[in-house]
Amino acid sequence: MMVKNTHKELDQAKPAQFELLKVCRDTQARRGILHTRRGAVQTPAFMPVGTQGTVKGMLPEQLAEIGAEIILGNTYHLYLRPGHERIARFGGLHRFMNWNRPILTDSGGYQVFSLGDLRRIDEQGVRFQSHLDGSAHSLTPELSIAIQEALGADIMMVFDECIPHPSTRAYVAESTARSSRWAARCKAAKTDRGAALFGIVQGGMDMALRQASAGDLIEIGFDGYALGGLSVGETAELMYQVMEWTLPLLPQDRPRYVMGVGTPENLIEAVARGADMFDCVMPTRNARNGVLFTGFGKVSIKQARYLDDQTPIDPDCFCYVCRNYTRAYLRHLYQSNEILASVLNTTHNLYYYLHLMQGMREAITTGRFRQFRDEFYRKRNPDANS
Amino acid sequence: MMVKNTHKELDQAKPAQFELLKVCRDTQARRGILHTRRGAVQTPAFMPVGTQGTVKGMLPEQLAEIGAEIILGNTYHLYLRPGHERIARFGGLHRFMNWNRPILTDSGGYQVFSLGDLRRIDEQGVRFQSHLDGSAHSLTPELSIAIQEALGADIMMVFDECIPHPSTRAYVAESTARSSRWAARCKAAKTDRGAALFGIVQGGMDMALRQASAGDLIEIGFDGYALGGLSVGETAELMYQVMEWTLPLLPQDRPRYVMGVGTPENLIEAVARGADMFDCVMPTRNARNGVLFTGFGKVSIKQARYLDDQTPIDPDCFCYVCRNYTRAYLRHLYQSNEILASVLNTTHNLYYYLHLMQGMREAITTGRFRQFRDEFYRKRNPDANS
Repeated sequence: MMVKNTHKELDQAKPAQFELLKVCRDTQARRGILHTRRGAVQTPAFMPVGTQGTVKGMLPEQLAEIGAEIILGNTYHLYLRPGHERIARFGGLHRFMNWNRPILTDSGGYQVFSLGDLRRIDEQGVRFQSHLDGSAHSLTPELSIAIQEALGADIMMVFDECIPHPSTRAYVAESTARSSRWAARCKAAKTDRGAALFGIVQGGMDMALRQASAGDLIEIGFDGYALGGLSVGETAELMYQVMEWTLPLLPQDRPRYVMGVGTPENLIEAVARGADMFDCVMPTRNARNGVLFTGFGKVSIKQARYLDDQTPIDPDCFCYVCRNYTRAYLRHLYQSNEILASVLNTTHNLYYYLHLMQGMREAITTGRFRQFRDEFYRKRNPDANS
Repeated sequence: MMVKNTHKELDQAKPAQFELLKVCRDTQARRGILHTRRGAVQTPAFMPVGTQGTVKGMLPEQLAEIGAEIILGNTYHLYLRPGHERIARFGGLHRFMNWNRPILTDSGGYQVFSLGDLRRIDEQGVRFQSHLDGSAHSLTPELSIAIQEALGADIMMVFDECIPHPSTRAYVAESTARSSRWAARCKAAKTDRGAALFGIVQGGMDMALRQASAGDLIEIGFDGYALGGLSVGETAELMYQVMEWTLPLLPQDRPRYVMGVGTPENLIEAVARGADMFDCVMPTRNARNGVLFTGFGKVSIKQARYLDDQTPIDPDCFCYVCRNYTRAYLRHLYQSNEILASVLNTTHNLYYYLHLMQGMREAITTGRFRQFRDEFYRKRNPDANS
């Protein structure tokens, strides 16, 4: 691809150096830079999801153009197809998919645990059946790390269980303790000294278990820390509560990644509580379903009201789509099942998310994050002050 | 869009000025420039098909980047959805779809006649039912021109019947004579003096009827002439025979467009017989089905043999796809039903077609078209000389 990164040589013993530039006076919001072996990531950062070796509908150059500095790859999907060893023979996922900036891979745990009846868990790991062909597989902490290293991930995640909500306290405690043991096995299994490894705090919606999990992980020691088990059906208030319990427990000098979250509101609130990194399929999946994000809320482009609408999705948006296409055209493409509907909608939605993060970063830098948040809500609720 | 055309002011009475630069010594191949109100088109030219206001999977900028100078729009589809009057309110198809280079529109006849039992023909025109919702419509020469003018086409086509093959000689004669009468009505109905109008020679596979049709159209007088009714199931030999009968009858100073053709071989043979313009869904439709064009023949990327193939689709191709992606990655995308499979495959196939035309143009200019054709066949059949 065209875009080249220049990045400083990293200390191999600290493969993800986090540079904390500023902390908000009014909130816990943090402005930083995460240095990886494939370049720097400005935080707070949003990572577009590239499940099967592609961010659906986007060329790598298009991702770079709208400001994506890091993307997420899915261990479970790539393990099954085309296979991590095959990707390794190709020189890793970056070369395979033509993306030379940082990649974070998940551990495969989330997908495997989502299989429901198709999986069995024990201390060793998880046995499961492929959703593609029903074939039998076993995923362990050691194999998860081996797969992530074969993919060439710049940031790897520990193999853990994303606990369903609601669950009994007993199960949450048992699962969380097991995830801590698995986290230690992941760290022990790691051989790629240039890659970072992040721990994942579990503990369900229970403060004491979250604290225990965070304590376990900090004791093991990781390059960064994630909050898992959120956005699993709980209320936004409960999600924010868990962040408030947990994020302050994590080391100031390491990046904090809130997994699988979320809506634009969720991102702002999580940043206000001290989160640095995010991933979510929401912008990309919603795009393919014709739901578009704007400063004033969501637009469902399939609606007949847009048939003759000559305005862009969001008149205040400067993305390629809003500069060149009308709502009526986008509705026409969606109604006609055209490939370009997914391409243009995804471009806009990812731009919206990445631009929102950029806005937050600027606001933190200039000491105006609280005003930025206020303004964000005011634009969504134009009548709030009237 | 980014690309701007500079083009000279056109005489409104000659809206498609054809500049014949060179004729091959060995064949009938012609090198020319077709000047339209939205810019020049180098001929021989291939026009990517944009059925529903988009060339499937391609951004307008991507089309321009691979050298598309003109695209085709479909009157039938755009009439039904989103409606030509709606598109007119948006300032025409160019603005609607963000393409500012020339557009040629078909007359809608081909699609309407493809509807089979859903249509009824008489002297006035064709009554038909929409394939979308079964609603009743009537398409006449006058309405076809009105639709094409509403779309803002730079080149319009007369409304005619694309005669099925085989048909009885009596039916071919009756239909061809009616198409001539319709052609005259189209010319009379035309009001956009800046748009060109092309006649379409019919006559089935019968030399006398082709001659009669060409004579009728030349007498009416058009800005360019097309051959219709080809690529309808006849052999390649018969198709070439019809070209040999018909193309020499057409005025040297007008562009000649062979409609709906065809394979790379068809294009070379048609150019050798004096054709200047082409359109075909083959590169785009095949791309979406995983069939890729190369100098050595077709590649079906879904095959298991490409699982570990680290070479590009065509090592001799300089397109974006061949410079950045392997067969194995393209197979993975196709097997995974990824949007990017269609995007990358379409990019490659259209580049192949447009690059093939460019090669023919250069060869005619430098007096090497015969050698170019020989070389084309030699690469496809590497054992031919052994």
